Amino acid sequence: MRDVQSEPDHRNMDIDKVGVKDIRYPVTVRDKTEGIQKTVASINMYVNLPRQYKGTHMSRFVELLAEYTDTKHLDLHSFTDIMEEMKVRLDAESAHLEISFPYFIKKKAPVSKAEGLMEYLCSFTGSINGNEQPDRVVQVQVPVTTLCPCSREISTLGAHNQRGEVRVAVRYRSFFWIEDLIAAVESCASAEVFSVLKRDDEKEVTERAYRNPRFVEDVVREVALRLSANHNFTWFAVEAENFESIHKHSAYAYLERDRRG
Amino acid sequence: MRDVQSEPDHRNMDIDKVGVKDIRYPVTVRDKTEGIQKTVASINMYVNLPRQYKGTHMSRFVELLAEYTDTKHLDLHSFTDIMEEMKVRLDAESAHLEISFPYFIKKKAPVSKAEGLMEYLCSFTGSINGNEQPDRVVQVQVPVTTLCPCSREISTLGAHNQRGEVRVAVRYRSFFWIEDLIAAVESCASAEVFSVLKRDDEKEVTERAYRNPRFVEDVVREVALRLSANHNFTWFAVEAENFESIHKHSAYAYLERDRRG
Amino acid sequence: MRDVQSEPDHRNMDIDKVGVKDIRYPVTVRDKTEGIQKTVASINMYVNLPRQYKGTHMSRFVELLAEYTDTKHLDLHSFTDIMEEMKVRLDAESAHLEISFPYFIKKKAPVSKAEGLMEYLCSFTGSINGNEQPDRVVQVQVPVTTLCPCSREISTLGAHNQRGEVRVAVRYRSFFWIEDLIAAVESCASAEVFSVLKRDDEKEVTERAYRNPRFVEDVVREVALRLSANHNFTWFAVEAENFESIHKHSAYAYLERDRRG
Amino acid sequence: MRDVQSEPDHRNMDIDKVGVKDIRYPVTVRDKTEGIQKTVASINMYVNLPRQYKGTHMSRFVELLAEYTDTKHLDLHSFTDIMEEMKVRLDAESAHLEISFPYFIKKKAPVSKAEGLMEYLCSFTGSINGNEQPDRVVQVQVPVTTLCPCSREISTLGAHNQRGEVRVAVRYRSFFWIEDLIAAVESCASAEVFSVLKRDDEKEVTERAYRNPRFVEDVVREVALRLSANHNFTWFAVEAENFESIHKHSAYAYLERDRRG
Repeated sequence: MRDVQSEPDHRNMDIDKVGVKDIRYPVTVRDKTEGIQKTVASINMYVNLPRQYKGTHMSRFVELLAEYTDTKHLDLHSFTDIMEEMKVRLDAESAHLEISFPYFIKKKAPVSKAEGLMEYLCSFTGSINGNEQPDRVVQVQVPVTTLCPCSREISTLGAHNQRGEVRVAVRYRSFFWIEDLIAAVESCASAEVFSVLKRDDEKEVTERAYRNPRFVEDVVREVALRLSANHNFTWFAVEAENFESIHKHSAYAYLERDRRG
Repeated sequence: MRDVQSEPDHRNMDIDKVGVKDIRYPVTVRDKTEGIQKTVASINMYVNLPRQYKGTHMSRFVELLAEYTDTKHLDLHSFTDIMEEMKVRLDAESAHLEISFPYFIKKKAPVSKAEGLMEYLCSFTGSINGNEQPDRVVQVQVPVTTLCPCSREISTLGAHNQRGEVRVAVRYRSFFWIEDLIAAVESCASAEVFSVLKRDDEKEVTERAYRNPRFVEDVVREVALRLSANHNFTWFAVEAENFESIHKHSAYAYLERDRRG
Repeated sequence: MRDVQSEPDHRNMDIDKVGVKDIRYPVTVRDKTEGIQKTVASINMYVNLPRQYKGTHMSRFVELLAEYTDTKHLDLHSFTDIMEEMKVRLDAESAHLEISFPYFIKKKAPVSKAEGLMEYLCSFTGSINGNEQPDRVVQVQVPVTTLCPCSREISTLGAHNQRGEVRVAVRYRSFFWIEDLIAAVESCASAEVFSVLKRDDEKEVTERAYRNPRFVEDVVREVALRLSANHNFTWFAVEAENFESIHKHSAYAYLERDRRG
Repeated sequence: MRDVQSEPDHRNMDIDKVGVKDIRYPVTVRDKTEGIQKTVASINMYVNLPRQYKGTHMSRFVELLAEYTDTKHLDLHSFTDIMEEMKVRLDAESAHLEISFPYFIKKKAPVSKAEGLMEYLCSFTGSINGNEQPDRVVQVQVPVTTLCPCSREISTLGAHNQRGEVRVAVRYRSFFWIEDLIAAVESCASAEVFSVLKRDDEKEVTERAYRNPRFVEDVVREVALRLSANHNFTWFAVEAENFESIHKHSAYAYLERDRRG
C-alpha cells in the first residue's frame, strides 16, 4: 500500500508544526493532597516537517497518547518525555505539546469550614527543538472576586464588584505545585471564590472584598510582585479580566516579565 | 441528472424537521428610533418531510434567504411570510424558522448623559403548520446588575453584586417593539448595565443597585409581574442567571406562564 | 443572623425552577467494560419555590453534590436518589437535575485493531414532581461520517462526505448501557469515527462510507427504526447534523416519537 | 469627586496593556464590490500604564469608539487613526487595538451561477509604540473543502473529505483588499465552499475536490507559495485545520515566514 505521506515534496517549504488538534482524552495528574487526580484533557500534538516530505503520520500521535495515558501519570516530568517520544516516533527535530484540563481543589469556606471542590483550568504547554533545553510553560486560570476601588470611594452605599478571572503563565526552573501558584493568585484579589458558602461565610467574603478593593491593574501588579519574589519563575505573564457588573464588556490588564536573559 | 432526494422512501417514517442550520447572513431589522438597523443573523430553516420522500432540497432554503434579505427587511410580519414561502418552495405542510441576531440600542448614562450602544441578543422563532395560526416567539437577552439582598442584610460593609442575564421569551397578539420589552426587563434588576459610564454615573449606578437588592428569584417575579400586566402577551417564559461574584457557578431562576387556554 | 430567603414574599408568584447552574464537578459513572469511569461533569440543580417564600438556599445544592460525589457513583439509580434528596433538603415539591459529561469508550480500528479512546458527550436529565413517577431522559452525542447519496450518484469521481453528529435522547423503562445506545447509533451512519486509524483502516473506513451513502434524513430514519424496535424506549428524539464539507452551514434533520400514551 | 485612577502607585510596576475587552459594536468596513459593508465587531482596546499611575480611565475607550463608529468607516487607515487617538486620550505611550468581524462576500455557484453570501471571519490587530511605525496584522478565516490524498490513493471507492478552515495572518506594506487574500486562499484547497449549490454545482465541486487532493500540509504550503510571491506581504502565518470526517479531532498544520529583517 502506497505511503503518500513519505513521498518527496518539491515545494521547498519547511512546516513549523503539523499534527493533531483538539483530541479529548482522560489523563491522571499529580495532586498535592490526594497523590493523583483523574481528569479529562484537551490535547494538541505537533512536530515539524522538513521540506522533503509530503506529510506526517497523524495516527502515530494518537497511538502514543493512548499508550502513555494507559500506564503513566501526567506531570511536569512525563510531559517532557512525551515530547521526546514524539520526536522519535515521528522522526522529527522539534515537537510541541499542549495539554489543558480542569483541575479540582478542595476548599473550606472561611467561617463554617464547609467543604466543596473548586475547578481551575490548567494547561501544560511545551516545545523541544533538537538538543536544546525543553521550553515549558504552566498556566492556571483562577476565578476571583474584585471590588472596584473607584466605586467604593465615590459611592455612599456599597461598591460594585464582580467575578473576575486571573490567568497566569510561568516558565520555571524546577518542579512546583499548581496548588501553590493558585493560592498565590487568590491572595491577590479582593476575595477568593468558593463553591460552598453558608451565610456566615457570605458575610465574611462580602466584607473581605469591601476591605480589599482591587482594579484589574491592582490584581496584575499584586500577582507580579508575588511571582517576582519567587526565583523559581524565570518568566511570567499575568492577565486579569473582570466581567464587569455595570457593563456588558470586560476590564482587562496584562503584564509580562522575562528574567531569562 | 438523477434527483435522489425526490425518489421514494420505504421506511414509512415522517421527519418532523429537515433543513439548514447555522447559516450566517446579514439582515435588516426594524428599529424604533432609527427606522432600520443592519445586523448579522444566525439562521435555522426547516420543513417537515413526509414519509414517501427520500430527502428535501437543501439549496432552496438558502436561495430563498438570499432573495429575501436582498430586498426586504426582517420584522414580525415578514418573518411569517418567509415561513409561508418555505412551505411553498419545499412543497411542505409545516415550516420552522429561527433567526437570532445582536441588536444595538443607544443608551444615555444616567447622570453625564454620555451615549453608547448596548448589545442585546434577540431572536425570532416560529412555526407554521398547515392552515393553523402561525406560532411565533420573540426572545431577548438582557444583561443587568443584581445585588444580593442576603449579603446586604448580613454584611456591615457593602454587598456582593454581579453581572446577570435575563432571558425573556414571549408569544404575543400584535406587533410590539423589542426596545419596550428590553426596557421593561431592565427596570426589574438592581440596576441597568451601560456601555459608557463616567464617574458620576458609576456612583449613581452603584448606589441604585445597593438600594434595589434582587435575588434571581426577585428578578423573574418582577419581570413576570410586568409581563402579566400586558395583555398583548399570551405566554411568556422568564429566566434570570447571575454570574455570581462569590462563586464560579451561576444562580438561576425560571418561570413560565401560559394564558392561551 | 437574618435569613432573608426564608422571609415571606407577597408577589403571589410561584417559581418553576430555582437553583444553581453550570457547576463543574468530578463524578464517577458506571462503565460496561471497566466497572466504573471517572469523568468531569457540568451540573444544573433546581427545585420549585412556592409563592410564599422569598428565596431558596443555594448552598444546600452544592453541599448535597459534594457529599454525594464523595462517596457514591452516578448512575441511573443514584440520579433519582439525588433528586429525592434535593426535594427533602430544600423543602420543595419538585426537583430537576441535569448532568452532562464526556464519556470515553475504547474502540478498535476495523483492520489493524489499533486501540484508542473515543469521547461521547452524554447527559442525564430528570425531574420529580410530588409523588409522580420520576421523568428521566438519557442523551448521547455520537460523532459519525456521512457520505452524500446525491453527490455519489451524480459525480463521476468520489462523493462529498463529512463529520456529522447524531444526538439521541430517550425515555426508558429499565436500566440500559449507554455503550449499547451509542453502538446502535454508529451502525446507522455511513461509517463510524475512530481515534486511531492506520492506513489499512483508513482504506476500509473510506470504502465503507462510499458503500453506505446517507443523508441526514436517512440517518434519523435508520436510528428511529432501531429505537422503535426496542420496547425499553418509551419516547425518543433523534437529530442528525452534518458539518457539510461543501458549505459553511449544517444540514439537519429531527424526529421524535412518543409511545407513552 | 476623587479620581482614584489618577492617584500615585508605589509598586513600581509598569503594565503592558490595560483597557476594555469584548465590546460588541456595529461597524462599517470597506467592501471591494459594494463600497461599504455594515457588520458587527468584537473589539479589544488597550494602552500601556506607566508605574506611577494607579489605573487607566476605562470609559474613554468606549467614548472614543462610539464617536468614531458614528461618523467614520473602519479600514486599514482609520484603524491606525483610532490607535493614535487612544494614545492621546489616555495619555499613553503605546496603544493596542483588536477588531474582529464577520465579513460577507457574494459568491456565484460554479455552474448554475446561483448567488449567495459567504461569511468570512476577519480581524485587524495593531499596536503603536511611541513614534515607531505602527505594527498591523490582518487576519482572515476561510472555510474550505479538503480531500485526503492518502485516502484517495489507497481506496478503490471514493476518498474521505471534510470541511477545513484556513487562517491566514499578514503584515503588509500597503493597502490590499481582503477579498483578494480570501480568493488566494480558496484557490489552494481541494475545492471552495459555497452557500448555494444546485445539483450541477454539487457534481462540479465533488469532482473538483477529487481531482485536487490536499493534506493540511499541502494547503499551508500552497498558501505560503502564493503569499511568498506577493511582495506586499512582509510577514505571514498560515494555519490549516481539517475537521476530519473519519476522526473526532482535527488535523492541523502551521507555518510562518518573516521577510522584515
